[in-house]
Amino acid sequence: MQTSPWQRRDRPPCIERRIEFADYSETRAFLDTLAQLSEEMGLYPDISFGRTYVNLTLHLDAPQAQDPEEREQRIDRFLAEVDRALDGQGEDRVGTL
Amino acid sequence: MQTSPWQRRDRPPCIERRIEFADYSETRAFLDTLAQLSEEMGLYPDISFGRTYVNLTLHLDAPQAQDPEEREQRIDRFLAEVDRALDGQGEDRVGTL
Repeated sequence: MQTSPWQRRDRPPCIERRIEFADYSETRAFLDTLAQLSEEMGLYPDISFGRTYVNLTLHLDAPQAQDPEEREQRIDRFLAEVDRALDGQGEDRVGTL
Repeated sequence: MQTSPWQRRDRPPCIERRIEFADYSETRAFLDTLAQLSEEMGLYPDISFGRTYVNLTLHLDAPQAQDPEEREQRIDRFLAEVDRALDGQGEDRVGTL
């Protein structure tokens, strides 16, 4: 698995990341984890993926209904959970070498 | 659910489609169906999605190893299966009105 760090962009304000996987089953495992996180945290990044890559884009401009500070904290937690999932997925594979 | 028809593009040669769903669970159901189709048919479109939309891009320029005619037939079958899945998903919801 290869991954860029989270990258912050201004126009539009968002945080992006690209992750490349060894095969489709790893890509699927990560997408399933993301789906669960999205439902648990009510955060739905724009996701593009192919057989062995996933691009994530989290938009930072809060929809009117949400409190910006609360949303920023939720995004930070989401990023941390994604990091944890990727670390975990990396270890799983190290364990199987 | 709202959907554009399949649209063929030339540069690069590909077929595209955008589908919009009523909610995230419908989006997830369709993505799961796509994942299954991809694994069964060995065809991996580039997919981008958010909470209630999915964009599909099938690249037509065959990787060297594949016979173009065989690949074209497989793509046609893939498109037909996606149509069937969407029809089915549309009926499910009609059935629950």
